[in-house]
Amino acid sequence: MNRESGSISINTENIFPIIKKWLYSEKDIFIRELVSNGSDAISKLKKLASIGEAQIDGDEKYYIKVIVDKEQKTLKIIDNGIGMTDEEVKKYINQIAFSGVKDFVEKYKDKTDDGQIIGHFGLGFYSAFMVSNKVQIDTLSYQKDAQAVRWTSTSGIEYEMEASDRTERGTTITLHIAEDSEEFLEPYRVRETLVKYFSFLPFELFFEDANAVKDDETKDEDDNKEDGENTEKKAQEPTPINDTNPLWLKNPKDCTEEEYKDFYRKVFFDFNDPLFWIHLNMDYPFNLKGILYFPKLRNEMDNFEGQIKLFYNQVFVADNIKEVIPEFLMLLKGTIDCPDLPLNVSRSFLQNDGYVNKISAHITKKVADKLISIFENERENYNKYWDDINPFVKFGCIKERKFYDRVKDIVIFKTTGGEYVTLKDYLERNKEKHENKVFYVTDEKQQAQYIKMFKDNDMEAVMMTAVIDNHFMQFLEMNESGVKFQRIDSDLSESMKDKESSADESSQKEISETLEKLFKESLNNDKLTIKVEALKATSLPGMILLSEQSRRIQEMSRMYGGFNFGGMYGEEESLVLNSNNGLIKSLLSLKDREDKKEDVKLICEHIYDLAKMSHEQLEPDAMTRFIERSNSLLTRLASGE
Amino acid sequence: MNRESGSISINTENIFPIIKKWLYSEKDIFIRELVSNGSDAISKLKKLASIGEAQIDGDEKYYIKVIVDKEQKTLKIIDNGIGMTDEEVKKYINQIAFSGVKDFVEKYKDKTDDGQIIGHFGLGFYSAFMVSNKVQIDTLSYQKDAQAVRWTSTSGIEYEMEASDRTERGTTITLHIAEDSEEFLEPYRVRETLVKYFSFLPFELFFEDANAVKDDETKDEDDNKEDGENTEKKAQEPTPINDTNPLWLKNPKDCTEEEYKDFYRKVFFDFNDPLFWIHLNMDYPFNLKGILYFPKLRNEMDNFEGQIKLFYNQVFVADNIKEVIPEFLMLLKGTIDCPDLPLNVSRSFLQNDGYVNKISAHITKKVADKLISIFENERENYNKYWDDINPFVKFGCIKERKFYDRVKDIVIFKTTGGEYVTLKDYLERNKEKHENKVFYVTDEKQQAQYIKMFKDNDMEAVMMTAVIDNHFMQFLEMNESGVKFQRIDSDLSESMKDKESSADESSQKEISETLEKLFKESLNNDKLTIKVEALKATSLPGMILLSEQSRRIQEMSRMYGGFNFGGMYGEEESLVLNSNNGLIKSLLSLKDREDKKEDVKLICEHIYDLAKMSHEQLEPDAMTRFIERSNSLLTRLASGE
Repeated sequence: MNRESGSISINTENIFPIIKKWLYSEKDIFIRELVSNGSDAISKLKKLASIGEAQIDGDEKYYIKVIVDKEQKTLKIIDNGIGMTDEEVKKYINQIAFSGVKDFVEKYKDKTDDGQIIGHFGLGFYSAFMVSNKVQIDTLSYQKDAQAVRWTSTSGIEYEMEASDRTERGTTITLHIAEDSEEFLEPYRVRETLVKYFSFLPFELFFEDANAVKDDETKDEDDNKEDGENTEKKAQEPTPINDTNPLWLKNPKDCTEEEYKDFYRKVFFDFNDPLFWIHLNMDYPFNLKGILYFPKLRNEMDNFEGQIKLFYNQVFVADNIKEVIPEFLMLLKGTIDCPDLPLNVSRSFLQNDGYVNKISAHITKKVADKLISIFENERENYNKYWDDINPFVKFGCIKERKFYDRVKDIVIFKTTGGEYVTLKDYLERNKEKHENKVFYVTDEKQQAQYIKMFKDNDMEAVMMTAVIDNHFMQFLEMNESGVKFQRIDSDLSESMKDKESSADESSQKEISETLEKLFKESLNNDKLTIKVEALKATSLPGMILLSEQSRRIQEMSRMYGGFNFGGMYGEEESLVLNSNNGLIKSLLSLKDREDKKEDVKLICEHIYDLAKMSHEQLEPDAMTRFIERSNSLLTRLASGE
Repeated sequence: MNRESGSISINTENIFPIIKKWLYSEKDIFIRELVSNGSDAISKLKKLASIGEAQIDGDEKYYIKVIVDKEQKTLKIIDNGIGMTDEEVKKYINQIAFSGVKDFVEKYKDKTDDGQIIGHFGLGFYSAFMVSNKVQIDTLSYQKDAQAVRWTSTSGIEYEMEASDRTERGTTITLHIAEDSEEFLEPYRVRETLVKYFSFLPFELFFEDANAVKDDETKDEDDNKEDGENTEKKAQEPTPINDTNPLWLKNPKDCTEEEYKDFYRKVFFDFNDPLFWIHLNMDYPFNLKGILYFPKLRNEMDNFEGQIKLFYNQVFVADNIKEVIPEFLMLLKGTIDCPDLPLNVSRSFLQNDGYVNKISAHITKKVADKLISIFENERENYNKYWDDINPFVKFGCIKERKFYDRVKDIVIFKTTGGEYVTLKDYLERNKEKHENKVFYVTDEKQQAQYIKMFKDNDMEAVMMTAVIDNHFMQFLEMNESGVKFQRIDSDLSESMKDKESSADESSQKEISETLEKLFKESLNNDKLTIKVEALKATSLPGMILLSEQSRRIQEMSRMYGGFNFGGMYGEEESLVLNSNNGLIKSLLSLKDREDKKEDVKLICEHIYDLAKMSHEQLEPDAMTRFIERSNSLLTRLASGE
């Protein structure tokens, strides 16, 4: 063939079905697009007025109105913005993807900033055809001597233009709703969609049910429950459905505590006050406004279930968009408005570019800074918040290295003594007793006897009772060199042992062997590991220990359905008997008395059960035997035996 | 203005940036689009051959090859399919969204089914410009005397065409990768993307690292780890990265158990065999193939975390698409291939239309049918599976009314006796003892003493230990009229009471009053509710009961952070004392003996603690006191007191 060149062409018939049907994943998006266009039309007019290119009355009231008419099967979107001349309709409507906004911003870029302009693809209008079998535009430009234009199209491919009878400046889009989209003739459905996207639109947005008004004229005041208004209200000034000046846009200095709490209640329907909040208010190097709230957990077992609402120039985009909001921040509740975001055509999707990463990094930094500031300036409050915020902080550390690097020194731990200390503090003040070792509690009730023993020995452990703590410990072990976490029931600290009484080695050895034999026989369990120690806590006859490593291997194995990690099941738990305890001493003196054989067996079993019970829940059979044994003990006591 | 009409026009410069940059949310999608086009090119040729319109060698081997060349900064996608003439390039490439596939299907729709044709938007090719600064096509049509064509474009807006030196039938797309997309010059990245989308493509797909080959020629066999091949292998026949005939396309009759398990292991990397599976194989009224596996839970606490991979003509679309797969089915693991799906342009999104609902309903029905068939024909297996599948079935019932209606009669419950019975069976066989009432256990260990008492009284309760059971019970109470669920520790069944011994009302009343006074004083707790009953279980001194309603209110209140539901906190728990028990009888005889005062107090406390312990975990302080009391009891026994 001969060499040739040319332009790739595109054909409306081919591309239009794609725009109309396939581009948007959610049907209600046409409402977002058309109302956004109305808002943009007002923004443009205001800007022209501000630079003297348009003459506007000082007390001009801008508005957008949506009217649903189920009888006529129409939905109207009306604005009193800039309007279009016939030339503009030809340019911006008759040519797909020729964006009027882009043109406008280009033209006036030196004279005004482009804030508050929502659309920028020039495709939004055509989404009207997703739900309509006929679309009509009636528009009158702000320009002097402008003539109103009517544009109609049934297919989105062919159009007709003629003079319009519109007399007010602005634009009305009339959608003749197609049969398969009649849900959008239901007032509640339209209202719900408007509330979802436009609760904070910068211009007043009104919703009207045309049939409700008609009904009022002929009938009485029923049937209007759908949009929650009644005749009486209708007669009064209508109220917009939106708050045109959301709290996040205000200067943080001008916002009161009550306003923040109010906003939180209204937006998130959470009637527990938030703990505290961060007001993001940034103009440079990017425009980012928002408020992030730290919610109060409702109870210990409550999972963080946050909600970060993303806005684009005061129009709602979506909840919890993972591209912009770091995963761990989604545990918070908040609103973020970022007009610089590179939105995808369908708006709910974002290009994952370097810019988005910068925004995300900035938010993360702000959150860390806020936490550090509370830690440094309001340490008591910080301690008070900690029970609520610690899962969030820990999750953040694990998920975001940079966050961890910032907050690592303000991660605190609640001790068994009820204090809140940093890891460094804990290690420092316990280094004499156990260097680089952190004892922890996973279940305050279950491990209560070990906690008591710790306290009696003037030792302390930290609470690691949150679901995330298991991961967080391992994370710290990997990142803080040398630090080892050990559960409180994993080992005896040297400081618990009574060194003096265990002086005589050979007699101690004999005692050990005797006790081991006695318990193994009594419990009828040859495999049980028995250790004998002289403990300072003389009141304690016995306790169960399971080494940290063995427990972790067992947990891992359970997690993986009994998978055997190379045969390393670790040791079993061991029963530690206290040779300093009176009961244990008595046992030794009774062991050879034939008449006490039954009692000795009972005592051994009971000592074991009581130790076991402080370590974990007894198995049903063991519990039954324990209760029966207890009852028989009590009966003997009662009968004066 | 004068009335006028015309066609809406579209302009490549305006629409192209949208297609190129904004349409697709994930960058790697261009690979999916271009390889899919290659596959379609082969499908078309095979179809023409099958109807005699193309002459093809019998032993022709079709293939698609992807070659990455990091040095040259190119990525090539090569196929030996139908190719294009210069006229076809002009028609299908030079006009955006003019789909060759649509044309082809239209033309041959009577002569062949359109299975295996992947593309249908005519937009896929342009996604090449998402990552390239120059795209070149070299193509030679299958047609007799066809001449090879070369097409190049840097912008996607202007193109050049000339003769190509290509001599083999088919098409090569050469992408000159732009700087911001160099990740796609990394062999591992390209290979990973190919594996993700094309593991089951119908034609053999090969991957080649051009530099690895070059290195082999000059250097030795290192640096080729990236694509996992070595020199030796290179010399041999290359192996495709895909399985061209996935198991789901085979006739279920021809598939062996081992094949199903193998496929499961390979696709889901789960080395525990699945419990059972459902092979979906439907041609009419829609085309739906797939295999759904019921995974084995790894342990009791394991959450179902399923993965349903959706395919479109053997090309992967996405995991767990909520529009097609009912939410509860995402707890399973499986593959579904549905070439009739109305995919969005970006393919990962679906129109939520009636068609999708039908597919979803069909899958739900198939799953229910399979469960019913196992229940009816392999009841023993069904019981065996139940522990693993019950959370899935219950979740399904709650989420999908239709699923519940189908499976309600095969929902079974494990009883305290270890049997598996339907709700109807349970109610029927227990109606004499408690009509329309289901007793349940939430924690087998904690409630072991109540279970024992039930068993001793020849009664049965059902296990409701899964996380979802709390919801499921309430669901059943709403949907099965009259049925009430009561936890096993909520009330005494009449059949547990010893009617004969409680004959003498007045003496019973006296006993009650005495015991109540005694316990209140001993426990130093005036508010405790104490009830005295003559129970058949004579060995039991006392137990704690908490009415179902009170417990539910308490749980709800905890859930909502201490919110008081109109002051209705219900009653507190009560201590039931058994006047038939020997210990309780002894207590009555000891109550006035001054010398036994301490013992009586101790016995009362211990009876209360033992009862409490069977009901819930003791508070730390209570547990400490219990253990101390136990030790002192044992010490008294040991010292022969």
